[in-house]
Amino acid sequence: MLGAATTPAEARAAFRGGAVRPTAGIAAGYVQCNLLSLPAADAFDFLLFAQRNPKPCPIIEVLEAGQLESEVMPGGDIRRDVPAYRVFRDGELVDEVADVSEVWRDDLVSFLIGCSFTFESALLDAGVPVAHIDQGRNVPMYRTNVPTRPAGRFSGPLVVSMRPMPAAQVADAVRITSRYPSVHGAPVHVGDPAAIGIEDISRPDFGEAVEIAEGEIPVFWGCGVTPQAAVMASKPEFAVSHAPGHMLITDLKDSDFQVP
Amino acid sequence: MLGAATTPAEARAAFRGGAVRPTAGIAAGYVQCNLLSLPAADAFDFLLFAQRNPKPCPIIEVLEAGQLESEVMPGGDIRRDVPAYRVFRDGELVDEVADVSEVWRDDLVSFLIGCSFTFESALLDAGVPVAHIDQGRNVPMYRTNVPTRPAGRFSGPLVVSMRPMPAAQVADAVRITSRYPSVHGAPVHVGDPAAIGIEDISRPDFGEAVEIAEGEIPVFWGCGVTPQAAVMASKPEFAVSHAPGHMLITDLKDSDFQVP
Repeated sequence: MLGAATTPAEARAAFRGGAVRPTAGIAAGYVQCNLLSLPAADAFDFLLFAQRNPKPCPIIEVLEAGQLESEVMPGGDIRRDVPAYRVFRDGELVDEVADVSEVWRDDLVSFLIGCSFTFESALLDAGVPVAHIDQGRNVPMYRTNVPTRPAGRFSGPLVVSMRPMPAAQVADAVRITSRYPSVHGAPVHVGDPAAIGIEDISRPDFGEAVEIAEGEIPVFWGCGVTPQAAVMASKPEFAVSHAPGHMLITDLKDSDFQVP
Repeated sequence: MLGAATTPAEARAAFRGGAVRPTAGIAAGYVQCNLLSLPAADAFDFLLFAQRNPKPCPIIEVLEAGQLESEVMPGGDIRRDVPAYRVFRDGELVDEVADVSEVWRDDLVSFLIGCSFTFESALLDAGVPVAHIDQGRNVPMYRTNVPTRPAGRFSGPLVVSMRPMPAAQVADAVRITSRYPSVHGAPVHVGDPAAIGIEDISRPDFGEAVEIAEGEIPVFWGCGVTPQAAVMASKPEFAVSHAPGHMLITDLKDSDFQVP
């Protein structure tokens, strides 16, 4: 039974064994990562894209071509330890599978990208509400009209996640999340959705809508779906990502990513 | 006359015109950068090396192959705007010149790497002494026995800079520099030089020795000479760097690199 007390190694083994489910709430206190695997020929351009867009694309770890595990997932197998994967060809989503061993290529470089699950625990610990958790939904995510900084062949829109906050707690949310620069850090936008090209806050592009109570302000953070949006916009010949919400669970601790 | 009030653009123009001198004290408040230019074939490995070793190799900006200026040095020319360059072939230092236009290659990717000049101003503002400035010397730098995290073809020892502090001010130095993670951040080591393989603190491997007063503790930070040590250890076929102390002056402000 996968839950908060499951260890990262146990969770990875369960997913390798065929379990498919979202990873929210599993292995509490451990860092979960977005995944993007690309051919080596595209790896410099993407690493530079991430370097130039650190808020949506904070790099936690890179597995070089031929490398299937690393010290952040000892004994793991990047082709099988994520509960569900997406496969892209020429920027088109062509498949969603529980194991990518069969389509894996020896030239794939894998980027592990920070996830906001890490700072959500810190928000909750500080008494700042996280609406989508309270409402039992996936976090709402939106494509914005804010361009990322391009790098080589990669470009695309900034994707943001949104958490509504009582106005009096916006400052706390900024202060707390700014202490986690490696997992999206401080918000990229506070308030008016229209100013970043979001026409209808009740219709997210990814995830699920949440109720926004009277007096709450929408607060927006850079989102780890931005790399998938860049793949769709930039059309590399081949790419593999995690399926939204189905993350790689690492042995790294959330607390390791807090800065003073 | 180059000095604290010189603008970054004026300084770059002077160096492009042939001036050769160390950049300490020029264009106060603006970020100065270490430079490493490598063939595109080595660029992914080096960017990953920097990503894995952010304390000695904090990337401020990357100029892609064919790109000679960027928004951090508008109107600039990376081949001519650094006061002095070093040229490496197969890891050997083969030349030191004021202009690398003649040996430049269209496939070179240029990495601009943060420099501790940024946090030294913050230390001085807070009343923490910086010995090498007080003593009118170049900062002392040491090769350690601490390995960097390798990436692709790049590996090598961590190089550190050292600033001695009165014991009562060590905590302030840690606190202040930890707010500048993009320019080496918090110290990597405090105290005992022998513990990181430094046999004689009075004989630095780069720069100049400074006097350490009775009761002062040596404090060590990751150093931007680490990439040059990696070039020497890893022997890429071609590389260009700045000459130590002769940095690229950018239009970025030191204050932009402070985190809360």
